Amino acid sequence: MTAPISAQAMAMADRVESFVREIVVPYEQDPRRDHHGAPTDDLVMELRGKARAAGVLTPHIRDDGSHLTQRETAEVLIRSGLSPLGPLACNTMAPDEGNMYLIGHVGSPALKDRFLTPLVEGRGRSAFFMTEPADWGGAGSDPSMMKTTCRRDGDHWVIDGRKTFITGAKGAMVGIVMAASVDEASKGGACMFLVDLPDPAIVIDEVPNTIDTSMPGGHSTVTIRELRVPAAHMLGEPGEGFKYAQVRLSPARLSHCMRWLGSCMRAHEIAVDYACRREAFGKTLIDHEGVGFMLAENRILIQQCRLMIDWCAGVLDGGSLGTVESSMAKVSVSEALMKIADNCVQVMGGIGVTDRTIVEQVFREIRAFRIYDGPTEVHKWSLAKKIKREWKQAREAARAEQAA
Amino acid sequence: MTAPISAQAMAMADRVESFVREIVVPYEQDPRRDHHGAPTDDLVMELRGKARAAGVLTPHIRDDGSHLTQRETAEVLIRSGLSPLGPLACNTMAPDEGNMYLIGHVGSPALKDRFLTPLVEGRGRSAFFMTEPADWGGAGSDPSMMKTTCRRDGDHWVIDGRKTFITGAKGAMVGIVMAASVDEASKGGACMFLVDLPDPAIVIDEVPNTIDTSMPGGHSTVTIRELRVPAAHMLGEPGEGFKYAQVRLSPARLSHCMRWLGSCMRAHEIAVDYACRREAFGKTLIDHEGVGFMLAENRILIQQCRLMIDWCAGVLDGGSLGTVESSMAKVSVSEALMKIADNCVQVMGGIGVTDRTIVEQVFREIRAFRIYDGPTEVHKWSLAKKIKREWKQAREAARAEQAA
Amino acid sequence: MTAPISAQAMAMADRVESFVREIVVPYEQDPRRDHHGAPTDDLVMELRGKARAAGVLTPHIRDDGSHLTQRETAEVLIRSGLSPLGPLACNTMAPDEGNMYLIGHVGSPALKDRFLTPLVEGRGRSAFFMTEPADWGGAGSDPSMMKTTCRRDGDHWVIDGRKTFITGAKGAMVGIVMAASVDEASKGGACMFLVDLPDPAIVIDEVPNTIDTSMPGGHSTVTIRELRVPAAHMLGEPGEGFKYAQVRLSPARLSHCMRWLGSCMRAHEIAVDYACRREAFGKTLIDHEGVGFMLAENRILIQQCRLMIDWCAGVLDGGSLGTVESSMAKVSVSEALMKIADNCVQVMGGIGVTDRTIVEQVFREIRAFRIYDGPTEVHKWSLAKKIKREWKQAREAARAEQAA
Amino acid sequence: MTAPISAQAMAMADRVESFVREIVVPYEQDPRRDHHGAPTDDLVMELRGKARAAGVLTPHIRDDGSHLTQRETAEVLIRSGLSPLGPLACNTMAPDEGNMYLIGHVGSPALKDRFLTPLVEGRGRSAFFMTEPADWGGAGSDPSMMKTTCRRDGDHWVIDGRKTFITGAKGAMVGIVMAASVDEASKGGACMFLVDLPDPAIVIDEVPNTIDTSMPGGHSTVTIRELRVPAAHMLGEPGEGFKYAQVRLSPARLSHCMRWLGSCMRAHEIAVDYACRREAFGKTLIDHEGVGFMLAENRILIQQCRLMIDWCAGVLDGGSLGTVESSMAKVSVSEALMKIADNCVQVMGGIGVTDRTIVEQVFREIRAFRIYDGPTEVHKWSLAKKIKREWKQAREAARAEQAA
Repeated sequence: MTAPISAQAMAMADRVESFVREIVVPYEQDPRRDHHGAPTDDLVMELRGKARAAGVLTPHIRDDGSHLTQRETAEVLIRSGLSPLGPLACNTMAPDEGNMYLIGHVGSPALKDRFLTPLVEGRGRSAFFMTEPADWGGAGSDPSMMKTTCRRDGDHWVIDGRKTFITGAKGAMVGIVMAASVDEASKGGACMFLVDLPDPAIVIDEVPNTIDTSMPGGHSTVTIRELRVPAAHMLGEPGEGFKYAQVRLSPARLSHCMRWLGSCMRAHEIAVDYACRREAFGKTLIDHEGVGFMLAENRILIQQCRLMIDWCAGVLDGGSLGTVESSMAKVSVSEALMKIADNCVQVMGGIGVTDRTIVEQVFREIRAFRIYDGPTEVHKWSLAKKIKREWKQAREAARAEQAA
Repeated sequence: MTAPISAQAMAMADRVESFVREIVVPYEQDPRRDHHGAPTDDLVMELRGKARAAGVLTPHIRDDGSHLTQRETAEVLIRSGLSPLGPLACNTMAPDEGNMYLIGHVGSPALKDRFLTPLVEGRGRSAFFMTEPADWGGAGSDPSMMKTTCRRDGDHWVIDGRKTFITGAKGAMVGIVMAASVDEASKGGACMFLVDLPDPAIVIDEVPNTIDTSMPGGHSTVTIRELRVPAAHMLGEPGEGFKYAQVRLSPARLSHCMRWLGSCMRAHEIAVDYACRREAFGKTLIDHEGVGFMLAENRILIQQCRLMIDWCAGVLDGGSLGTVESSMAKVSVSEALMKIADNCVQVMGGIGVTDRTIVEQVFREIRAFRIYDGPTEVHKWSLAKKIKREWKQAREAARAEQAA
Repeated sequence: MTAPISAQAMAMADRVESFVREIVVPYEQDPRRDHHGAPTDDLVMELRGKARAAGVLTPHIRDDGSHLTQRETAEVLIRSGLSPLGPLACNTMAPDEGNMYLIGHVGSPALKDRFLTPLVEGRGRSAFFMTEPADWGGAGSDPSMMKTTCRRDGDHWVIDGRKTFITGAKGAMVGIVMAASVDEASKGGACMFLVDLPDPAIVIDEVPNTIDTSMPGGHSTVTIRELRVPAAHMLGEPGEGFKYAQVRLSPARLSHCMRWLGSCMRAHEIAVDYACRREAFGKTLIDHEGVGFMLAENRILIQQCRLMIDWCAGVLDGGSLGTVESSMAKVSVSEALMKIADNCVQVMGGIGVTDRTIVEQVFREIRAFRIYDGPTEVHKWSLAKKIKREWKQAREAARAEQAA
Repeated sequence: MTAPISAQAMAMADRVESFVREIVVPYEQDPRRDHHGAPTDDLVMELRGKARAAGVLTPHIRDDGSHLTQRETAEVLIRSGLSPLGPLACNTMAPDEGNMYLIGHVGSPALKDRFLTPLVEGRGRSAFFMTEPADWGGAGSDPSMMKTTCRRDGDHWVIDGRKTFITGAKGAMVGIVMAASVDEASKGGACMFLVDLPDPAIVIDEVPNTIDTSMPGGHSTVTIRELRVPAAHMLGEPGEGFKYAQVRLSPARLSHCMRWLGSCMRAHEIAVDYACRREAFGKTLIDHEGVGFMLAENRILIQQCRLMIDWCAGVLDGGSLGTVESSMAKVSVSEALMKIADNCVQVMGGIGVTDRTIVEQVFREIRAFRIYDGPTEVHKWSLAKKIKREWKQAREAARAEQAA
């Protein structure tokens, strides 16, 4: 049995919902967007000021620095996602939410003071430098191929390499950089470093336009040349980087599901409202089964997503890394959200493909989400491996029993 | 918060699973089937004898006659469904499970003694006479159109009409017959009656062959001519029949989901085992992504189904009728099970379409399940109505608030 | 440009359609079925007598023994498929249609006289012994693994091995048996033999019940022990068996598409008729968009299937083996037909899962068809190989051009 | 039998393909886009200059002003669509292609000289003012509700009303405006007018950002206030506007299918190339079945689309309005193209959601296409009506025959 959700967490979730609906939603038509379509940091900081005033900034971390349970986090993050701007306003967005989680779990008190506190206070953004360009032969979906290196040089480590799809790197205040050690003592092991940004040793090569536009700073490709990091800024121990990446993995993956579920719930509300007001071919849209059935399907899918999220959150709260469960949740939720978002666009017809509502954006975001954090196919691939492994173990166990 | 599942219930669920796997599964190749393909009552009674001996007969009803919670029932019924013969053996099958539930909730002590006790003891089968032939203008998916009538005649009621898709009518010991009253005192209201079967006034017109073959007695169309039932055998009060039908509706619908989930979990086990043993085009089947991905999808879908069932069971345990929730669960689970069963057939190739495993039967059963207990479209239709109703209520509420 | 369809072929197609609709359809409720559900040979022969009288027996082969073009064959075979009994009546069924095609293309005049003539005259059935049991390590979807052997012994060949899924073997008059030569002169090459059936050297080990029930004799697993065949009964040349199998492959595969398209067109007619007559929830079924949209989808899919068949037929008529094209057509058509059949069942609700119409059977047949003649996944696998091969060739060509 | 495709048309199609691949494709990264993302007219005119030089401008209209057959048009338009910029370069884009078709079929020689010639010469763009804002109560998907009016005033007509989703209105040189007559002589009938643009009486109220970005000028909402048009600029006869709209309807709808098929074929090429070059998890991407099967599916779907387009084109060439057939083709093609584009994005992973290839744009365009020119649901709705109508006619015919 997982622990019940505390009344305080529920109250916070309610406050977040009110804040997003009343304060954030009116900003959805705010024109402050960068060339790529993402909200500017100026807009983000204005929203955070309002969140701070409303007491809903970084709502998933309590005042004493402790983190809500994952099931409580779900309550809060889903609501923050009711607007694509909500997570930015509330500081529950990716990759910051995952980065704060990671520093909170692995960082020393000194590193927390230095790097985590300003993030929790929403004073700047952060980035997680892990994925590497496939055309450089680096670690894409397969992190074991990491080519970015770090070597010890006195009191510093020196990092060289390339990274790609680094969400929010542009404009970030803090970076977590992952590299494979070439140092004798930790050779081949991965290390993680906390870095003040910007740093001239990290050059942003390009920020491609992408189908999604919710993330300030977009997704950068960067070159790292002789980045010198004080040894004291290493996160955790040398050679343990992959372990830490695992710690971050499932909660971060699941928080994507939470936020995007929130956005699809809102898109569904908008589509329902539209379908209940408009007439076509002699009756209200929703009274056409062709429309009503899509909305009914959405409702079922929203329930399914909610249950998958809560289930996986409960697994994490139980102390498991939840790698398999968060893979299952990610596939199930992202594919269901795609169907929901697609239905919303379709119900709204011409309006659905314009930016007069957030529905069009949500559709684009979810399309990207099906690829970010591991495409569906990679998760199915690892699930199939797991199924085979379990089958083998069961067979061995049966044989052992028989032999005994 | 719903109540936790009791240790006794979990222990019973485990016993049921062992019983089905060890005792029932070997009967799957037993040739005793009627002309339509369903197990004969002879086979059913033999299986029940073994269930009685194993202490797993009617496992969802405690010795004191009280019923497990719905969430506990899920644990037990899913496991009983691991073989298509399991529910017959354990007496958790449709329509008996729902009929026992209904008599247990509405029947007087005398009626329970007379009709419920032998059913709980697994001594015979029962049938629920509600649906009417559409080509007779009767109540199909729309029970408000009931044309079968009952009229008071002294100490008896006399029933006339037609019924169709009456599962298990042939060979049943007890019937629950629903009819619209033409009596002055309860005119137009529906009544329910308990009837000893067979009765010459209920003539089985036909039992069509159907794609599913798990239900003894098949699905009969019957004509009822001057069926005389003692007034004391009325279930509950005159005119309250539809209310009682509602009481039965959601738990019965959900128990279908439970049993068929169990059968699909088993089909998936069989497909995994096959895919882990067979080679094709140079490697083990499961190592082909085309196969492994189908099994990975199955695993995700099984989890989804389980969550939808437990969620809906929790709603029922909370005291709600759960009409909307059980509609949502039924659509979600039946469509997901269809995909699972289809994947299992496909993974197993030629073997998958033969009766050498239960996979082929499970596929056929699930196809029927998508129609039985309300086709997907009817549930979506009522969900769309519900969405519209809620939208209206929210609008009224907003207006009232504004006005206040 | 492919040749136009001749007026004679169109006239024959029309006659076939009239025959099937007027004479064959009334037999659909005929009770003469074997234990597995397939029509008995008695019923088949009665139907063929009527087809002979109506001049529609073996309609795809002209009186002079020549074969219609594939595009003409489509016109005729689709219409013969309007009833599941139609191909049996008209002698256009599998595997006979493909067997006649093969003997017609490869057989010597003597062999044609001896084996083809009685088949064309519809006097008996035939079987094609190629697939081998996977659990025996034989040739499943991958015919290069053939384990059944033939060795020359004077004027005879002696064949030993096992075969599985041999459609129609039980009750057949003629067999085409494929085996790998262990004879010095043709070692490792495949040979094909024409065999009079039954022969005590071919033992039917089992005929499993399968989800499909249209094929007389079902799908046998057989053991062949010292089957002696006169050398003169070899079809074509030693070692050329795989080449001949290729000749048969695409036309036979495509003829499945033709017949089953016919059956789905008829199932759609039945569903339309039902939906136009029945009322539910206050209006005619087809006026519910949830129903009407399924029928609209069917109509589009039927058109798609027709076009894929005609396209592939045109490719074959142009002289190509059409292996890739018939793979594409098979995947596209079989998956679309599954959707059509599923929609028909769903539209018809409870009636749709009974044998009161052919819809239920057609659904089952199509499920099997998605596996027979190569499951979807095997065809996609070989298509992906083809795509890669073409990409490589294009790259080489571009390089060569650049170098020139 | 439809007429064969002329050698000249095929030669033109080949020239168009070479032009698009060699000249247009390099412009895909050209930064000249308006604020909404569509190519600027400056860029369009530069491309047209090159098309003119290459002899591929307006390739579907012959030098003598006659139009290619629809099947020939398919050859040319599919190839022009191989780049999203291709139709703009070749002047085969919507809505111009349809507008030229309409003026060519209905316009008097004088109107052709005045309005058509400059369009055919690619000197400017045009717009078709039909759809009206639903929130204004006007004609959305249902043109019979037209609220924009025209009244005769001496030698002029005066037009008042609103229009929405007017593709390309901004920046257009020629407009075709549709309005309902309030003039006595043609009361209630629709009229079409040719208008020089811009005109101060047509005010562009807004051009919303939309998910698609290929169309210069975007999709405007406009208000028309006392637009005076010389009576001589009426297209065709008063009151015949809906008839003319029908003439334009099917060819214009089909030309969308053609162009977007071309773009998806190119997206598929890009995805194949990517999948054949990249490695992941130890092998080339395409050798992963999870990837290879998506590309195999694409190939099948491309074939299906091609066949549906050619079939419908043949129907139009046969002289039919093809309203039903073009509905079927539109649904089938747009839904299949969505799947193709989605597969391409998924195969390419992170790169697939960036603008480094056209794949991301093609995905967005196709999403809009599923709504433009009638959403899937509207077409299915009208197909269901058609199915019901045909069923009734067949019943009447059968009755009449029986009575005779």
